[in-house]
Amino acid sequence: MSERVKERNSKLRAFMEEKGIDIYVVPSADNHQSEYVGEYFKARSYVTGFTGSAGTAVITKDKAGLWTDGRYFLQAEHQLEGSGIELFKMGNTGVPTVLEYIKAEMNNNGKLGFDGRLMAMQEGEDFVSGLANKNVTIEYDYDLVDMVWEGRPKIANEPVFLLEEKYSGESRLSKLSRIRGTMKELGASYHIITTLDDIAWLLNIRGNDVMYSPLVLCYAVVSIEKVDLFIEESRLDVSIKEALTKDGVKLRKYNDIYEYVKGFTAEDVVLIDPDRINYALYKNIPAQTKKIEANNPTILFKAVKNSVELANIEKAHIKDGVAITKFMYWLKTNASKTTITEISSSEKLEEFRKQQEGYLWQSFAPISAFKEHAAMMHYSATPETDVELAQGHLLLMDTGGNYFEGTTDITRTFAIGQVSEELKHHFTAVARGMMNLARAKFLYGCKGYNLDILAREPMWSLELDYKCGTGHGVGYLLNIHEGPSGFRWYIVPSKHETQTLEAGMVITDEPGIYIDGSHGIRIENELIIRKGVENESGQFMHFDAVTYAPIDLDAIAAEDLNRDEKLYLNSYHKLVYDKLAKYLSNEERAWLKSYTREV
Amino acid sequence: MSERVKERNSKLRAFMEEKGIDIYVVPSADNHQSEYVGEYFKARSYVTGFTGSAGTAVITKDKAGLWTDGRYFLQAEHQLEGSGIELFKMGNTGVPTVLEYIKAEMNNNGKLGFDGRLMAMQEGEDFVSGLANKNVTIEYDYDLVDMVWEGRPKIANEPVFLLEEKYSGESRLSKLSRIRGTMKELGASYHIITTLDDIAWLLNIRGNDVMYSPLVLCYAVVSIEKVDLFIEESRLDVSIKEALTKDGVKLRKYNDIYEYVKGFTAEDVVLIDPDRINYALYKNIPAQTKKIEANNPTILFKAVKNSVELANIEKAHIKDGVAITKFMYWLKTNASKTTITEISSSEKLEEFRKQQEGYLWQSFAPISAFKEHAAMMHYSATPETDVELAQGHLLLMDTGGNYFEGTTDITRTFAIGQVSEELKHHFTAVARGMMNLARAKFLYGCKGYNLDILAREPMWSLELDYKCGTGHGVGYLLNIHEGPSGFRWYIVPSKHETQTLEAGMVITDEPGIYIDGSHGIRIENELIIRKGVENESGQFMHFDAVTYAPIDLDAIAAEDLNRDEKLYLNSYHKLVYDKLAKYLSNEERAWLKSYTREV
Repeated sequence: MSERVKERNSKLRAFMEEKGIDIYVVPSADNHQSEYVGEYFKARSYVTGFTGSAGTAVITKDKAGLWTDGRYFLQAEHQLEGSGIELFKMGNTGVPTVLEYIKAEMNNNGKLGFDGRLMAMQEGEDFVSGLANKNVTIEYDYDLVDMVWEGRPKIANEPVFLLEEKYSGESRLSKLSRIRGTMKELGASYHIITTLDDIAWLLNIRGNDVMYSPLVLCYAVVSIEKVDLFIEESRLDVSIKEALTKDGVKLRKYNDIYEYVKGFTAEDVVLIDPDRINYALYKNIPAQTKKIEANNPTILFKAVKNSVELANIEKAHIKDGVAITKFMYWLKTNASKTTITEISSSEKLEEFRKQQEGYLWQSFAPISAFKEHAAMMHYSATPETDVELAQGHLLLMDTGGNYFEGTTDITRTFAIGQVSEELKHHFTAVARGMMNLARAKFLYGCKGYNLDILAREPMWSLELDYKCGTGHGVGYLLNIHEGPSGFRWYIVPSKHETQTLEAGMVITDEPGIYIDGSHGIRIENELIIRKGVENESGQFMHFDAVTYAPIDLDAIAAEDLNRDEKLYLNSYHKLVYDKLAKYLSNEERAWLKSYTREV
Repeated sequence: MSERVKERNSKLRAFMEEKGIDIYVVPSADNHQSEYVGEYFKARSYVTGFTGSAGTAVITKDKAGLWTDGRYFLQAEHQLEGSGIELFKMGNTGVPTVLEYIKAEMNNNGKLGFDGRLMAMQEGEDFVSGLANKNVTIEYDYDLVDMVWEGRPKIANEPVFLLEEKYSGESRLSKLSRIRGTMKELGASYHIITTLDDIAWLLNIRGNDVMYSPLVLCYAVVSIEKVDLFIEESRLDVSIKEALTKDGVKLRKYNDIYEYVKGFTAEDVVLIDPDRINYALYKNIPAQTKKIEANNPTILFKAVKNSVELANIEKAHIKDGVAITKFMYWLKTNASKTTITEISSSEKLEEFRKQQEGYLWQSFAPISAFKEHAAMMHYSATPETDVELAQGHLLLMDTGGNYFEGTTDITRTFAIGQVSEELKHHFTAVARGMMNLARAKFLYGCKGYNLDILAREPMWSLELDYKCGTGHGVGYLLNIHEGPSGFRWYIVPSKHETQTLEAGMVITDEPGIYIDGSHGIRIENELIIRKGVENESGQFMHFDAVTYAPIDLDAIAAEDLNRDEKLYLNSYHKLVYDKLAKYLSNEERAWLKSYTREV
């Protein structure tokens, strides 16, 4: 591999020289600032050989570097070996940022290159201002990796389907009218939307262009009268075209948006989201066109699920809960008899999900992690790492499904056989955290950072922490991580999750304990935010758990539970039984009765 | 009163006419943005007859208005009656702000007047920008109220005393060197300090110029070589003058600072805190002098108490706890036998405090509120409102003392006789909230808004809220409310309380329940923030309760307590007994033993 990477880099340098580019940057993104990208967009992997989901490559005339974060240090070290590419461990002291490195390496009057479609507007602007005093030119028009990439995968082109109103709960025209309402309030005549989940939500369309995420590669420009949708037309069948045309959607070629936005005039006012538009597109908007910068209005509209969506989400979770429960019964009754591995248990669970009506595919790469593997938060079992389950340890499974009725995300940690008291105390602390957040009442106006400590305190009491947020929003048959709300005690501006918690949002609640080399525990329910009583104190809010699956009582130390926690666990388990019992066989039902017994 | 107010206003209008002023504003402040002000500075009270602590008067040629907040609507209505001054209820829908009102009333090219020393820099700037398009002139040089105020109280002039290093824990020179370090980092050659607690802390001086607060009216300008202290020299005895002079402090007249700052040159760089400098002073700094705007560095230095201060604070709280406990014993043994009122109980408690060595005076206006009076958060008993205690109800006492060893702030709510189950449930919810915050462990980096919900959740669970923060920083023989940290779930920028919680800060923990017309409960401990374990999860922090007094078990419903809460309550009560027992009589000690028994 390392030889091939070297060859690719030397070809890339030849094109850099041809274009007069001194330093070329290859980020991990696609044209749409997606969290996960399709195969076509894995240019940074191609250039470096490093396959992690996050990282930036920088190629100079005689050096090459890769920047990535702590999750990937080991993997990157391994994959970069012999490639001549230096690893820069982001966040470690003394390690320069990409910009600092470029500042140091770049000559005065030099030229920096990158594919402007892969760079967020703000990142591009940061390069411009950071290199201004060296009089550096920015060349963002060339995708040099494309020129050297032999056998580049085709850009995703999966069939597009309409999401019927019985699933979406709101027509395209109604959604457009809400967006146009916001545009009018802001005084905008056009609104450019490039984020795939925002367009899919707005137009009630879905596809399969990014692994796991039912997204469609396209751009949209909404004006007061029409929508210009930039998409390969061949992907749409007649009925979809008709439906879109009827609602004022005009189809244009995917790449034509870059020319299209050049046609804006000095009279036009364009609403753009500075965090959600790429640099090339932004630079193509004429300077004399007025730009209003604001969050895409779709973001909040999409996050607040309507009553049809919420009813569907409950149905999806019942199906998901049935699959998990059938799997758990199978696991508990077979773990001591049969050979089961991380991968085979993951496949078994997927079998149960596939039995559910309306199931499409997994909503993210499943995590099935046994014993010390579970201490690695982003572990993904491969044939090389796969292990057999053995008595006395924990199996962590973080999985989810896409259904027409919504997207699910659930983690359960299962005791295989009898587990130690230490494991039980840790498991119970995690369960307490999950429940203490889930049963909170709070005043309207709270943000995730106000509530996070309810989930985290049982871990902090043990002087342990989990190095991530407690939860994230979940899309409706869309992205598994969806803003603008989440649970995290510290504010990370780029996460866009500090919006007030609104009724109808769906957010995960997933605290955990991760002990290096020993074990990992996470228990995750999804919560729907609901309005409660309004009185002179204000509008109270609370959560409804919408994930239905037993929390493994084999790993609960009942004596660690406070009275309120016991009451909640018992009522939650009663809910699980009531929701699922009728979909189970007699044996499974009897088993579930015992695994949802009162503690 | 109303006739006298009318007369004052008409005299004021005569002076307004003389100076060509169309509208004159009288705020509640002093020259130092103090929360509480001395008698000399109660100009707004003089002009309106309204004596509440917060409010702004606006006088036009033929109208007069008073703006105040919800705490004071009833009192203001009553006190303004017949004065011709209209009450503007701030925050109510449809009520204009002061600026909106002035915008509407002011003619083009008119003149707005106020005493620039009483207006914070930012407020003054807001008037300037808000009235810019009417071409309004701002006249901030005249204290017109002074011209009409017959028998105005003298400006406070109480003796100044030095706070010895055995109390302050750090010398003046050491503090100055820390300030100068920050000035150098910021590139400032001068730093203007006008806030009284910041100067008192920095120079280790104290006085009694504001009721309850041991402050000294003065301004300071710190440069790299010296300190100019603007203060009436007659207030300093020889030893103080010597001590100050030795450390490079030059004395100047109190009011001379306004001329002094005019002497800054284009080479000078002045550090000012835009929230903590008055408009007149700010405007007197020459335009060509460079200004650096930042928080006064004293604020964070002062909030983080040193080890000597912390040890002293513990001593002060033991004395305070002895006084409270002796009072509580007296109350519990006499309430059914003797006539006791709100005021007499407050006086009795003050007697016990006065018995303590090193006690100076109360640290704020004591609250002693019985039954439904306690539902008013800012109730202060007067001879007219004073009531006798009666069996079956609760007495809320929020009081504190200034000692050489520090300032205390404690609230206890006492059951008089047997109280109802409802009162017990509410009392226990408040106690749970107080304890759940106090026993938290948290990672370094947390702010008050992360932790507030721990105290508030038991109330929110009952669909009740208290309409204030959960706690505030406390000064060391300084202000009872001291920034920059506190506990509040929503961010109020003007409160300056969102600083990271640092080891050595002292913050109150005082949740409550207030039921209009029925009862009020508040339980308040002060907490010292401490560093705990540092491990791979980060630096853990926790609190030590430094308030020592029983939480009335007569009002605790033990069945409402979770196991962890019981453990905390029992260990807290053991601590109270261990700290106080040796200072009590045999009867008191036996009584305390029973009132700190395990539940």
